[in-house]
Formats: sequence, C-alpha cells, structure tokens
Amino acid sequence: MGMRALGRRRREADRAHAKAEEIAALTGRPVSGTDNASAASRADVVLLSVPYAGHAALLTELRGALEGRVVIDITVPLQPPRVREVHLPPGQSAALEAQAILGPGVRVVAGLHHVSSVHLGDPEHALEGDVLVCSDDDAARALVMGLVGDLGMRALDAGVLRNAIALEALTPVLLHVNKKYKVEGAAIRLLGVGLSRSGD
Amino acid sequence: MGMRALGRRRREADRAHAKAEEIAALTGRPVSGTDNASAASRADVVLLSVPYAGHAALLTELRGALEGRVVIDITVPLQPPRVREVHLPPGQSAALEAQAILGPGVRVVAGLHHVSSVHLGDPEHALEGDVLVCSDDDAARALVMGLVGDLGMRALDAGVLRNAIALEALTPVLLHVNKKYKVEGAAIRLLGVGLSRSGD
Repeated sequence: MGMRALGRRRREADRAHAKAEEIAALTGRPVSGTDNASAASRADVVLLSVPYAGHAALLTELRGALEGRVVIDITVPLQPPRVREVHLPPGQSAALEAQAILGPGVRVVAGLHHVSSVHLGDPEHALEGDVLVCSDDDAARALVMGLVGDLGMRALDAGVLRNAIALEALTPVLLHVNKKYKVEGAAIRLLGVGLSRSGD
Repeated sequence: MGMRALGRRRREADRAHAKAEEIAALTGRPVSGTDNASAASRADVVLLSVPYAGHAALLTELRGALEGRVVIDITVPLQPPRVREVHLPPGQSAALEAQAILGPGVRVVAGLHHVSSVHLGDPEHALEGDVLVCSDDDAARALVMGLVGDLGMRALDAGVLRNAIALEALTPVLLHVNKKYKVEGAAIRLLGVGLSRSGD
C-alpha cells in the first residue's frame, strides 16, 4: 500500500472514531469506528451509504474486503442539481452496478431508499413508511428484512435485485413531492398487504 | 385508406360499440364507442390503455388524430412472462416513448399505473391509494389530477414526465408483492403529505 492510501485510511479511521463517539453518546450504545476496508473485512453485514458520485470507486476499492459479505446498498443515483428528476445510471440502478462490481461472492441487498435522512437523524422521530427490500439472494433479503424490523419499520419483500431500479427511481419523485407540498420526508406505505409490522 | 385499414377500423368500431353498451348498462351513464382514430380526433383528453407490445404501433398510427390533445398514458412496459421484474424499455419509459412518437404538439401525462385492474373493474370496490401524476406540462398535469380526484382518489403531483420511469417501474414491484403476500391490488400511499383528497 502506498503512502497516499495509508494516509487516506488513517484519515478515514480518525473521522470514523469521532463519528462513533458521537453516535455512542447520542444513543448510549457501544459503537466503534475504523477505516472502510477494516470495517468491511470485520463485518457480516455492511451498509453502504455514500453519494452516488463515489459509489463505484469505493466498491472497487473495497471489493476484496467485501467478499462473502451481505452488502446493503441504499444508494440512490441522484444527479445534482436535478435531484427531483429520475436519472438512470449506466447500469440502470446503483445496486445492479454494485453487484456487477462486487461479483457473485457478495450478496447485494437494496433497500431503505425512502427513509428520510432528516427523520433518521432525529432519535425522537418515529420512522414511518414501509421499507421495500430486494435481492437475488433469498436468505440475504430475509436477513435485511429482519434488521429493518428491528428499526421498528415494516419490511416488504420487493423481489429480485433488478427491482432496485424502481426503488431507487422513486426517491427523486419523493423529493419532488416534498418540495411541491412543502413537507419533509414523504414516505410510502403499501395498502392492502396486511397489518403486521414484520411484513409476514 | 386501403381495404385492410378500413376493415380494421370497422372491427374496432364494432368492438367499441359493444363495450360502450356494456359499460352504459353497468353504470347508467351515457357512453359511446367508435374506432380509435375517430375517438382520438373527437376527444379533448385521451386515455391510452394498451399492452406495451402494441403501444408504439398504436401511437404511430394515431399521431395525426392526437395532435393538440392531452394523452394520459397509463402503460407499464411489462415483459411477459417476467411481469414481476422491472423491465426498462429502450426509451426508459413508455410515457417518454409516447411523447417522442407524438411530438411536442401533444401533451403526454403519465399516471394511474398502480390502480388495480381487478378493483377498477368492480364498481362496488372503493379505489384505494394515491395516484402519482407526472407531465412536462403543468396545465395538463393539473387537468388530469382533477380527473383523478373525480374518481375519488387522491392525485399527487409527481413532477416532470421522465419521473414516469419510477411510476412505471413500481408496477412490477407491486405485482411481486401481490404474489408474495397473496393479496390482490396492493396500492401505494404517500405518508406525510397532508390529508386532503384533492392533493392540494
């Protein structure tokens, strides 16, 4: 590893330590931080939350560390400044691009595209709406649906990974609705699918 | 016009007359039917409801008759038999393809992709869910939102026409949810956008 890469990993680790302390103080839970490659190689499940502009580069860098993991990709391929208009990336969806970069040894699951970051950052605000979860791997999809249930939200099985095209594309529409109707964090709910919080 | 085209228009008109009588009997409303080109040229607003396989051909045929009209395109580019997986058409969405075929003299509005045909065909069944409506023309979008309100559903402004990519792609996801959870006609509702039925 070159000096530049070492320096970047140290800066990543420093930022992650600081953020982990902040979250631990806020939640009273044990949280630790480290650089991306170390975090990826120690985890069973990795949640990837980066702006689309850095998505492919980060996945390419972490490809080795992510081998064998379940990767939850919540990326929406927004194209600033027109973030309220659907933009399809070259691979049709960020999640499909992730699976293509990471290869068949990584199980990519897409979901959580419609949870407002404003509400997510506010521990007092109950998270509303259903979380549509898709993957080509049934066990990985079920595992992530369970984690979503732990967040207190209803997870729904949204099918194969290519259905992430729909989930990702819906986010710019919700951003448009937010602006048009002067609200924050419009969420979606599926009607007619039963009332269980677990989605079974 | 050749003999084949004349024969087809006559068959279209015959089927339309029969269907109009059936709907009139069911609803007690005056309904009339005619061939597609005549209907298009007499209407202010045309609702296009055809399988995607016949979408481009029909629009090409009716291009002249539709000039100056508002066209509501509810087409979802499903690819049988895999109708529970998102399939993006060459033009990214059926509605964008319609606008490209019809040209700038026709105002294409996309919406009503998520209303269950099963529920729509049953006059006893209240229509649930929100109707997301998009168009590049503000007046045409508002007009169609008003018509949706007349159906007793809440219409929401979903922005520019290219946002139809998201609306169309969501239908295969809903078809997957229907099958997975053994329900009929799962619908969507946006939470956090107020309670008015008119969407204002």
